[in-house]
Amino acid sequence: MVHIVVTGGAGFVGTRLARDLLASGTLAVAGGDPRPLSRLTLIDQVPVAADLSADPRVRTVRGDLAALLAPGPGVLAGADAIFHLAAAVSAECEADFDLGIRANLHGTEALLAACRALGTRPVVVFASSVAVFGGSAEHPLPPVISDRTAPNPQSSYGTQKAIGEHLLADYTRKGFLRGRAMRLMTVTVRPGRPNGAASGFVSGIVREPLAGQRATCPVPPDTEVAVASPAKAVAALLHAVSAPEHTWGDRTAVTMPALTVSVAEMAGALERVAGPEVSALIDWVPDPAITAMMRGWPARVRADRAGRLGLTPDRDFDSIIRMHLAES
Amino acid sequence: MVHIVVTGGAGFVGTRLARDLLASGTLAVAGGDPRPLSRLTLIDQVPVAADLSADPRVRTVRGDLAALLAPGPGVLAGADAIFHLAAAVSAECEADFDLGIRANLHGTEALLAACRALGTRPVVVFASSVAVFGGSAEHPLPPVISDRTAPNPQSSYGTQKAIGEHLLADYTRKGFLRGRAMRLMTVTVRPGRPNGAASGFVSGIVREPLAGQRATCPVPPDTEVAVASPAKAVAALLHAVSAPEHTWGDRTAVTMPALTVSVAEMAGALERVAGPEVSALIDWVPDPAITAMMRGWPARVRADRAGRLGLTPDRDFDSIIRMHLAES
Repeated sequence: MVHIVVTGGAGFVGTRLARDLLASGTLAVAGGDPRPLSRLTLIDQVPVAADLSADPRVRTVRGDLAALLAPGPGVLAGADAIFHLAAAVSAECEADFDLGIRANLHGTEALLAACRALGTRPVVVFASSVAVFGGSAEHPLPPVISDRTAPNPQSSYGTQKAIGEHLLADYTRKGFLRGRAMRLMTVTVRPGRPNGAASGFVSGIVREPLAGQRATCPVPPDTEVAVASPAKAVAALLHAVSAPEHTWGDRTAVTMPALTVSVAEMAGALERVAGPEVSALIDWVPDPAITAMMRGWPARVRADRAGRLGLTPDRDFDSIIRMHLAES
Repeated sequence: MVHIVVTGGAGFVGTRLARDLLASGTLAVAGGDPRPLSRLTLIDQVPVAADLSADPRVRTVRGDLAALLAPGPGVLAGADAIFHLAAAVSAECEADFDLGIRANLHGTEALLAACRALGTRPVVVFASSVAVFGGSAEHPLPPVISDRTAPNPQSSYGTQKAIGEHLLADYTRKGFLRGRAMRLMTVTVRPGRPNGAASGFVSGIVREPLAGQRATCPVPPDTEVAVASPAKAVAALLHAVSAPEHTWGDRTAVTMPALTVSVAEMAGALERVAGPEVSALIDWVPDPAITAMMRGWPARVRADRAGRLGLTPDRDFDSIIRMHLAES
C-alpha cells in the first residue's frame, strides 16, 4: 500500500499527476515493487478538481503549506512519496516579492523540515524549473544548456527554485529524505485561464485561438522557447519518483528534455492543425519586459542525464496541439 | 560620515576587519568619496575584543542575529554598509544541522529582509566560501575552479553559503540593497583556539607548533589546500565594499584568489621559518572524514574576476607564517 502526497494538488500539473496516479492505481517508489495506491493526499490553498475529491482514495487538505506544517508534520504522516509542486509562479513573484519568499522559500523549507521530522526518509520529488538558468555579464547563457550549466537565476522564482534544489540535495545527503529535483520546462498547452507566469502566452497563443478568441503574443516571432507537453512533464515527475537510487544517481537536479520551437513555428503548427483562420487570431504585440524575461531563459537543452533516465522530448509542436485538442 | 555594521564582529575575520576599519578611519563605499567612519556596530553572540569595545566609535550588540532583527531592522538603522560575516562553521553545521539552518540560513534571510526594510539600499558584503564548490558523480570538481564553475556544495555549510549568494543576488536585482558576495578561502593562520571548522587544522598545524604544542594533521601530506592569509581575506572584503558598481559588475559571487599549498609544503615552510624542532611537533594522523571533506573542496583557483578587482593571492606560505609571527 502506497500513500502519496502532492503539494499544489489543485494546480494544473498537480491535477494531471493526481489523475494519472489514480488511473494507474499502483506505484513503484524508488525502484521498489509496484504497490497499490491506498491514499493520495492533495494539499492546496484552493479546492481540487471534483473528480479527484470524489475518489475514495483521495484526501484533500486546504491551506498554506508553511502554516499547515507549523504544528508538525502530521499532514504528511505515512507518506511514502511527496511531490512538491506548490509554488507561486514567475510573474506573481516578480510582482509580489514577499509572496515568493513565503510560498516558494518558506513553504519549501517547511516541507523539507516536516519530511525530516517524519523520520521515514520519504522520497521527495521537487518540481524545479528551467528558470534556475539565466545569463548575466560574467556568466552568459550558453547556446545550449546541459547538465553541467551553472544555475544563474534572473528572477525571484528561479532564485527560489535554485535554493530549493540546494536544500533538497543537503537534506538528501544528510539522509533525512530521498530528494529528486526535476527541472520542468515551460509546459504547454495549459488548459483553463492564464496564470501569473511570464511564459503564460506559450499556452495562450494556442489555447485562446482554438477557442475562437484572440490572444496576444508578447515576444517577437523568432523567439525560441523550450517546451514540454503536460504528458511529458508528468512523465518526468513519475520517472523521478520511481527511479531506483543508483539509476537516479547524483543529488543534483535533473533537467528534463525539451522541444525547442520559435513562437513563429508554434503559430505555423497551429495553422497546420487548425487552419489559418485560427492562427490569424494571434496578435503580435511584443512586451519588452516579457521578452527580456523569456530571452533570459534557455531555449535549447541537452538533457543527457534525463535521457539516461528514459525521458524524451515531445516530437513536434503539431503533436502537442493535437494532444491538447484530444483532451479538451 | 559612514556607519558600518559587522555581523560576526567578535569572530576572527570580523575582529581583524573592525581593527582595520578603525585604524583607517575612513571608508569609500561603492565608489563614493572616502568619508570618516563615525560609527562601527559590531553584532555577535559573544563579546567583542576589549580594544574594539573601548573605541568611542564602536557600538556592540549582543545576540542571535535573527532574534535581534525579528522586531525590525532597528539595529541596522543608518548603516551605509553591512559586512555579513556571522556564521556557524562547517564542522559545527555537520554536527548540528539545526544550528546551521538557524544561524546560516535563517540568520541570512533575516539580515537581508532587514536591509530591505531599511529602504536605503545599503551595500551588503556577504562572506561566502570556497565550500560552495564540490564534486559529485555527475558534476566532478574540475582540476582548477574558475568564475564559471557551478557551485555544488557537499556540506550543509557550503549549501547555506550558496543559498546566501542566491538570495543576495536576487535582493540586489530587485534594488533592495547592493549585494557583493566574496567567496573566502581557508584563512590561515588563525590565532587562538581551534574553532569547529573542518579546515581548522590548516591553522592548527602552524599555530600550535609555534606555541610549542603538538598538533595533529588529519589529512595525508600531499593534500592540497587553497589558502589565504587573514590580511588577504580582509583585503578582499574591503575591496568588495569599496568597488564602484560598474567595477564590481555582475550580481554573482566573486571567488577570491588563493595560494595553493600541500600540507607537506606547509610543514616545510614551518621548518624553514621556525626550525625542524617546530615542524616535528606535527603528528600525521589522517582522519577519513576530514580528509574526505577537504578533498571535496577545490585546491586550485583561477580567480580572474577577483584579479580584475585588484585582488592577489599570498606570495608563499613562508610569508604567511612570518605575518602570523609578527602579529602574535
